[in-house]
Amino acid sequence: MTVQVGILGATGAVGQRFIQLLDGHPTFEIAALTASESSAGHPYREAAKWRADSPIPDAIAGMEVGKTDPDHVSDDIDLLFSSLPSGVASEVEPAFLDAGYVVSSNSSNDRMADDVPLTIPEINPGHLDLIEVQRDNRGWDGALIKNPNCSTITMVPTLAALDEFGLERTDVTTLQAVSGAGYSGVTSMEIIDNAIPHIGGEEAKMETESRKLLGEFDGAELSLHDAEVNASCNRIPTVDGHLESVFADLADDPSPAEARQAMESFPGVDLPSAPEQLIHVFGDDQPDRPQPRLDRNRDDGMAISAGGVQATESGLKYNCLAHNTLRGAAGASILNGELLLEEGWL
Amino acid sequence: MTVQVGILGATGAVGQRFIQLLDGHPTFEIAALTASESSAGHPYREAAKWRADSPIPDAIAGMEVGKTDPDHVSDDIDLLFSSLPSGVASEVEPAFLDAGYVVSSNSSNDRMADDVPLTIPEINPGHLDLIEVQRDNRGWDGALIKNPNCSTITMVPTLAALDEFGLERTDVTTLQAVSGAGYSGVTSMEIIDNAIPHIGGEEAKMETESRKLLGEFDGAELSLHDAEVNASCNRIPTVDGHLESVFADLADDPSPAEARQAMESFPGVDLPSAPEQLIHVFGDDQPDRPQPRLDRNRDDGMAISAGGVQATESGLKYNCLAHNTLRGAAGASILNGELLLEEGWL
Amino acid sequence: MTVQVGILGATGAVGQRFIQLLDGHPTFEIAALTASESSAGHPYREAAKWRADSPIPDAIAGMEVGKTDPDHVSDDIDLLFSSLPSGVASEVEPAFLDAGYVVSSNSSNDRMADDVPLTIPEINPGHLDLIEVQRDNRGWDGALIKNPNCSTITMVPTLAALDEFGLERTDVTTLQAVSGAGYSGVTSMEIIDNAIPHIGGEEAKMETESRKLLGEFDGAELSLHDAEVNASCNRIPTVDGHLESVFADLADDPSPAEARQAMESFPGVDLPSAPEQLIHVFGDDQPDRPQPRLDRNRDDGMAISAGGVQATESGLKYNCLAHNTLRGAAGASILNGELLLEEGWL
Amino acid sequence: MTVQVGILGATGAVGQRFIQLLDGHPTFEIAALTASESSAGHPYREAAKWRADSPIPDAIAGMEVGKTDPDHVSDDIDLLFSSLPSGVASEVEPAFLDAGYVVSSNSSNDRMADDVPLTIPEINPGHLDLIEVQRDNRGWDGALIKNPNCSTITMVPTLAALDEFGLERTDVTTLQAVSGAGYSGVTSMEIIDNAIPHIGGEEAKMETESRKLLGEFDGAELSLHDAEVNASCNRIPTVDGHLESVFADLADDPSPAEARQAMESFPGVDLPSAPEQLIHVFGDDQPDRPQPRLDRNRDDGMAISAGGVQATESGLKYNCLAHNTLRGAAGASILNGELLLEEGWL
Repeated sequence: MTVQVGILGATGAVGQRFIQLLDGHPTFEIAALTASESSAGHPYREAAKWRADSPIPDAIAGMEVGKTDPDHVSDDIDLLFSSLPSGVASEVEPAFLDAGYVVSSNSSNDRMADDVPLTIPEINPGHLDLIEVQRDNRGWDGALIKNPNCSTITMVPTLAALDEFGLERTDVTTLQAVSGAGYSGVTSMEIIDNAIPHIGGEEAKMETESRKLLGEFDGAELSLHDAEVNASCNRIPTVDGHLESVFADLADDPSPAEARQAMESFPGVDLPSAPEQLIHVFGDDQPDRPQPRLDRNRDDGMAISAGGVQATESGLKYNCLAHNTLRGAAGASILNGELLLEEGWL
Repeated sequence: MTVQVGILGATGAVGQRFIQLLDGHPTFEIAALTASESSAGHPYREAAKWRADSPIPDAIAGMEVGKTDPDHVSDDIDLLFSSLPSGVASEVEPAFLDAGYVVSSNSSNDRMADDVPLTIPEINPGHLDLIEVQRDNRGWDGALIKNPNCSTITMVPTLAALDEFGLERTDVTTLQAVSGAGYSGVTSMEIIDNAIPHIGGEEAKMETESRKLLGEFDGAELSLHDAEVNASCNRIPTVDGHLESVFADLADDPSPAEARQAMESFPGVDLPSAPEQLIHVFGDDQPDRPQPRLDRNRDDGMAISAGGVQATESGLKYNCLAHNTLRGAAGASILNGELLLEEGWL
Repeated sequence: MTVQVGILGATGAVGQRFIQLLDGHPTFEIAALTASESSAGHPYREAAKWRADSPIPDAIAGMEVGKTDPDHVSDDIDLLFSSLPSGVASEVEPAFLDAGYVVSSNSSNDRMADDVPLTIPEINPGHLDLIEVQRDNRGWDGALIKNPNCSTITMVPTLAALDEFGLERTDVTTLQAVSGAGYSGVTSMEIIDNAIPHIGGEEAKMETESRKLLGEFDGAELSLHDAEVNASCNRIPTVDGHLESVFADLADDPSPAEARQAMESFPGVDLPSAPEQLIHVFGDDQPDRPQPRLDRNRDDGMAISAGGVQATESGLKYNCLAHNTLRGAAGASILNGELLLEEGWL
Repeated sequence: MTVQVGILGATGAVGQRFIQLLDGHPTFEIAALTASESSAGHPYREAAKWRADSPIPDAIAGMEVGKTDPDHVSDDIDLLFSSLPSGVASEVEPAFLDAGYVVSSNSSNDRMADDVPLTIPEINPGHLDLIEVQRDNRGWDGALIKNPNCSTITMVPTLAALDEFGLERTDVTTLQAVSGAGYSGVTSMEIIDNAIPHIGGEEAKMETESRKLLGEFDGAELSLHDAEVNASCNRIPTVDGHLESVFADLADDPSPAEARQAMESFPGVDLPSAPEQLIHVFGDDQPDRPQPRLDRNRDDGMAISAGGVQATESGLKYNCLAHNTLRGAAGASILNGELLLEEGWL
């Protein structure tokens, strides 16, 4: 079975990742690429400044880029992936939803809306049923599903695993790679021999999205998890891979060994892009891991790594890491698309 | 008035910083340089692989390097600065103390000893009186004073300023420069396009030294501050300057504005190497500061910078920064030497 | 004696360097700052996003920024420094020249014009007399003088020193710092863990400007040096300091020792911003020098460093280095301004 | 058919690359791993500090590491790959040769010996017949074959392609990645925000090895190519991938288009690890390529990339790039091993 998919915003950095990841996908086949007005009408190879470290797939290089407009996208497309800038997405996505498309979006708009599922398949697949609420509210035939921000997605799997011990509070500090800001987001003068203790809007995203992902949906309403989440976000001179230092207060006070075990055994899902094991935890014999360059590509960049689990007076501390443009962006949207298919929403 | 000083371990990275900083010092004059056996007997320019970005001062280049042994150091030396590896220092420093020398040491051994002052002049100058206890305990004529670890020294001034609001807990994550590990401590293969979530022994140093620095000395005994301090230490690809993200729980729940004010107005000291204002705080209009490359050299690398002060549910979060080999190492020892002189211990 | 100077394009990266360098200048006093329309009317501290690693000088912070238009600049200004983008400069500079101003410009337009002196004070001060030709040709009361491109200025002093042996050909490859492209010229995604073998227009600049600088002016016409100059320009992940590898064919076939001696003894000039010795040459005992981070700041960033001088079958090879935004940009224009004053052109 | 191979020096950086590359090799199967005395007797996972960005292959992790001594290596091994430090290799390799082993070595000793083939399969496969001379000279049953240095191997394919136009001289400047110095060869303090214009012995290797690779073997004696080769070698802050700027003087003065065509059409070889096309040339529409991070992994890191081909007064200039630890080290030795098998020397 083949599902025809389209990519909204196909020429940008995340758009290029979608194309790389969908090359050879067992089910999804790219049938439409859209971009801004100026790129429309050109073959992809001309419209995109391709900067990935593998060549443009042959089938894509000559494909014509279309307008990001439902009237210009074929009805045969079953699923759209969106990596539009959030300003554009907040105008364009509703038009596609009105027109009946199912959209798996990486854009940050609407992530915290009451009737939009914000989903990581391994963590909260049940939130998909918010689509019913969404359709009732908005009168859409289509469906809009979001994946979280790259810094959120790195930490939340570990918190989900530890929540069996009663998560009460987390103080997290991020060391984020420059690719998370897009191709031109961080200049070289800003970051070489330097670090920047601020990423606009990022801390609020981590603090709210985490509580939504860990929240409960009772079939009618979604309640946020009541843990306190405090985030401090930093940019460092690394290309790919977000590393995060987490302090977690847990009601049941597990030992580091119990915490490691909870993470290691946290169940994965059986979807094509999902890793068999969601979280890999380094033990005390490798206290200097995970590291971005060595661990970001684990399981094609879709696994979460953790390590350095130690007790503190109030709970635990540990580190976690994920590939921010694979598990944290394009890969996250594709995995959500696979979940939509599996659950019968396409 | 001129005070003759010596440098134990003068050829290493911190030793070179001592020489740079003491060049042109108003009171201290270098009269002795020591290093390992193999360097002894050679002029400094041959014994040291000089890697500073300014030439070796003329007066030093030809000075003969001596053995690190009290029998080979002149009695005219009033003060010794030590930047020996801690393993060596724990053997050699006592010999110099026995011989009656006053030693201001950057080495990590004995920092937590009950009778050794661990001092930042602006924070806890009164702890110097522990020297009396030390002399009683150990029968030394000399005196041993330590400065804290570079990562500790970056944060503690801000905590000292906030302690008027009742410090209860801090969760701190560091982003540390490679120079903190010495010239050969971190290989390029380990750190380019990467980060390392572990620095051996560093977290324990921050957790214990902070509580000693903020503790009270009643004339007989020093009690540690009872705040909880949890540290997570990371190395990043930055040459100089440690940046730290701090979460602080404070009993009196000050507003961010009150916290900023407390830091800005925290009193400095009147010593030659001390900045007029200890802590400079960036306001909400510059949320991306402090940054290592832009702010580490403030006041000749001796000022602390802070910024990003915001409220959390439980308290505050903010960032702080200091130059790790100036305020955090050689400059710290020299400042302690100036305090010893001022307080009449030389 | 004080000379009132103005800076055209004062808010950009090179403009900020002008302000840093002129702070405390013995003769030049900043009396006017201009920038684009949108900045005009605002105090400098608001108009500029200040990114230098020292604070804005107090006298400048509150100075009002004016329009880059001769009608809005006071007639009391004796000298203008220009660091405008070349597209803007090619329109605006002639207006200032028409209005009678003397302009020392770092912008690349008109550098190769027959009647514009392209000058390094130590190399070709006599070319200043081209101003007479310029005034005849263009009917200007003012005078336009240019300094060369940063990559050119790094190499040409060494070639000038070697030309006593008859320079016939040079093949030069550059390793250039990112600051040369301005604050936003190179993104972090382009350069971290990478290098770029292309800098638009740079190779042609090196190939032509070098021959003009080394050329002869007979009072009427300037003839280019007839050496062959081939350049290959690369960008690398370094903040400041251009390093260049030079192969030089010389008619008289000097030994490496003779070449070193010629460089070391090449005469400097007696101007406030000039280093006493123009070129410092590292010997065979330090084959790994010069290095950008260690040597770029020599003599306040105004000295040239060289090293690694060795014989080849056809001539010599060696390396040279200069600070690209000090000796290579703002410092170069200021030095030319000092020469203009010395030679009586102001 | 399966060939049993061993790796001498299996725990080092190049040794780890051998293991990665041989995992899944169609013909070669690792049957022996050797290392220094202290590692011998331990399973590989304990003996090696594994730093590759993929896990140790399962079949290797538990394999016992043996002594680097012919008496401790099984006679069933048909081929040994060597990545020993050259000092060790110059003592140990002869012992293996005496014992009759065939050794494909990446170590730099003996590369310029008259009777040792220094081979790149696409360039000079006929040099393998030097093995007959070698056996006559040395009385060995085995055979020793070397691959060139990583910086040499990056450039020589392009020179070989251009030699049809009569190569007379080349001036080459390298921008080399830190991995070429091994895991600990370059410290972070040496290279962040910096570049180093010296790599011990590297320039001489490029200058001599190139002429041997391009030289002629008449069945009895190998004569070096008579072109002049001048090299200037620099280290830059890049993890993997050597970029080189080449100036080439060619007797027949080809146009850039002819030069590009000669490189693009240079024949490959039909061996398992060889790329189908040896040299990929970027055209004028992509003047900023090749770049290390984007192009080093082409064809599993075994292809050469070139670009920026332009005319100079005396000839041509262009850039070339290869992955220094794949095509430039472990991959080069494996490819030579495949050639030995193909040509019947195993």
